[in-house]
Amino acid sequence: MTRSHEPPGYQCPFCKLAAGADTAHNSVADIVRRTSGALALISPRWWPRNHGHVLVVPTRHYENLYELPASAGHAVHDLVREVAIAIRATYGCEGISTRQHNEPAGNQDAWHYHVHVFPRYAGDRLYSSVPYPEFVTAEQRRPYAERLRCYFAAATGHESRA
Amino acid sequence: MTRSHEPPGYQCPFCKLAAGADTAHNSVADIVRRTSGALALISPRWWPRNHGHVLVVPTRHYENLYELPASAGHAVHDLVREVAIAIRATYGCEGISTRQHNEPAGNQDAWHYHVHVFPRYAGDRLYSSVPYPEFVTAEQRRPYAERLRCYFAAATGHESRA
Repeated sequence: MTRSHEPPGYQCPFCKLAAGADTAHNSVADIVRRTSGALALISPRWWPRNHGHVLVVPTRHYENLYELPASAGHAVHDLVREVAIAIRATYGCEGISTRQHNEPAGNQDAWHYHVHVFPRYAGDRLYSSVPYPEFVTAEQRRPYAERLRCYFAAATGHESRA
Repeated sequence: MTRSHEPPGYQCPFCKLAAGADTAHNSVADIVRRTSGALALISPRWWPRNHGHVLVVPTRHYENLYELPASAGHAVHDLVREVAIAIRATYGCEGISTRQHNEPAGNQDAWHYHVHVFPRYAGDRLYSSVPYPEFVTAEQRRPYAERLRCYFAAATGHESRA
């Protein structure tokens, strides 16, 4: 039985973003950090009490966790951790949780491996809530992207800072 | 503001298991694989339609993602991927999802970094379901542990197998 569900000729939105082009639901302005192997961007799909969550993807295309090479997995993990710390420092949240989906039965709906990094708030009921049916706008995403970009710019510029 | 919530004198159940001792809710028979930096075990807390999910933890003690060194994070990621493939091959499920929690607002309730690896089934409604209030028994966990141990024993013994 195949574990691949990517349709033939799939136009991958994450690959397009990584190559520097806007997509139907994201623009390059949503990218908050790039490393040699991974990319972090503001998700265009939001949950009602966890606005501005981030997706971290490998720069190269892999459909899911099963086929992800170790080097890409490590690059994604490292960036997930950096993003978790940055969200925790800048969103006013009280925790962070991450999730990752493989195959339609596992809630996957974009065919490029991605990890969701959520800001968490006491009583936010993330797991029992459902995302907004519509994608959010560039204007809604911008303040979160700017917050994280500023954080990373400062962290990169002053490595001695915590 | 501190991001640490581990109480003073915390008796860590994952450290105890890693050292080879049974705990209140797990026994060493729940361990399905060890690598140099990580440990995988059958969770004692189950969701109603995703029985036998696995926890992957670093062998050394770190409270959360924020303080996890890269080497421990990579060891956990590598074992999460191995476990995902093993569960997909042996549980009869149709997908895999993972999640990881930091701080009480993020649903963390054991103070040693751990990643949940869930078998997924079409229509299982993992996110809207809640775990059973009671921990499951050793008898309930055993068939899942045996399934994964056999898979890993075969994979280790015959590296040419898929």
